[in-house]
Amino acid sequence: MDSHLKETRIAGEVVYEGHILKIQRDSVCLPDGKTAAREYIKHPGAVVILPLFDDGSVLLERQFRYPLNQVFIEFPAGKIDAGEDPLECAKRELREETGYTASHWQFVCTIHNAIAYSDEHLEIYLARGLTAGQSHLDEGEFLETFTAPIADVIAWIRDGKITDVKTVIGTFWVEKILSGSWL
Amino acid sequence: MDSHLKETRIAGEVVYEGHILKIQRDSVCLPDGKTAAREYIKHPGAVVILPLFDDGSVLLERQFRYPLNQVFIEFPAGKIDAGEDPLECAKRELREETGYTASHWQFVCTIHNAIAYSDEHLEIYLARGLTAGQSHLDEGEFLETFTAPIADVIAWIRDGKITDVKTVIGTFWVEKILSGSWL
Repeated sequence: MDSHLKETRIAGEVVYEGHILKIQRDSVCLPDGKTAAREYIKHPGAVVILPLFDDGSVLLERQFRYPLNQVFIEFPAGKIDAGEDPLECAKRELREETGYTASHWQFVCTIHNAIAYSDEHLEIYLARGLTAGQSHLDEGEFLETFTAPIADVIAWIRDGKITDVKTVIGTFWVEKILSGSWL
Repeated sequence: MDSHLKETRIAGEVVYEGHILKIQRDSVCLPDGKTAAREYIKHPGAVVILPLFDDGSVLLERQFRYPLNQVFIEFPAGKIDAGEDPLECAKRELREETGYTASHWQFVCTIHNAIAYSDEHLEIYLARGLTAGQSHLDEGEFLETFTAPIADVIAWIRDGKITDVKTVIGTFWVEKILSGSWL
């Protein structure tokens, strides 16, 4: 099935392992029998939290992202530790980054953000029944949190003020959930 | 402005340049005056095409993505060549990958897909007035195309059959455009 599309691994190795990034390079057999090289980031996966208040507003962050040299509006998110359950990771990241805890958690969807050159997957969770608390940012982590009505967040997507994919997709999902059509 | 969030470059260099991927590593000054390392993919940027037929169906591709070892349903897309205009790139990629040309092109939005570790941006365009033709795939490129009603594509997102971020976001935009609320 799909043998006219599938590529098969012949051999490979980690060719770069740096401070954060790890690159795998494999030689593969193409559908036509030729060989080619495939290089990609080995990523542990991440979680995204959609913290939704009873009044239909959401909790967001503003964080500077060095590769693009700008501050982004984002939903809380973070990398999954080795062996960590994704939902436990989501609870931990929400608490650490924002101080909030949630009484109701629900899995929303998985997304893949860079399928051409990374094996990263993001697991998105909806968090409701929110209670504020004290945040505990990692060393070297700087961000601020704020709340906004979902209608404003949707307008910021339309106007190009929000461009981060996990935040765009999370917002569209929240809109579907609030309209009663999804989940 | 945002000096409590901003990181400033001190020095840096390309630490890996492989077959496809190029990694930059910089030392940066954090908001608290400490230094840290930042590593990220240098990417030329890409385009995504939303080919929309008059009957409300869209043109999609099925393509094997080696890093995740699976076939993905995707909108046509491709990397921007050095010095290439993004809209010209979109026209070229649509023609090469699917054979289609379009009489009406419209910019939709920019998205950033991996802000923690890549400077990639994707420029999304809506393509209407579609005419079929002959595709010309790159050496080593294998994909198949098909059309689907937008309602089916939206259901595939809800059910987890579509997880590629450019395709999820493009579909939500097409739904907004068809409902008359956006663009």
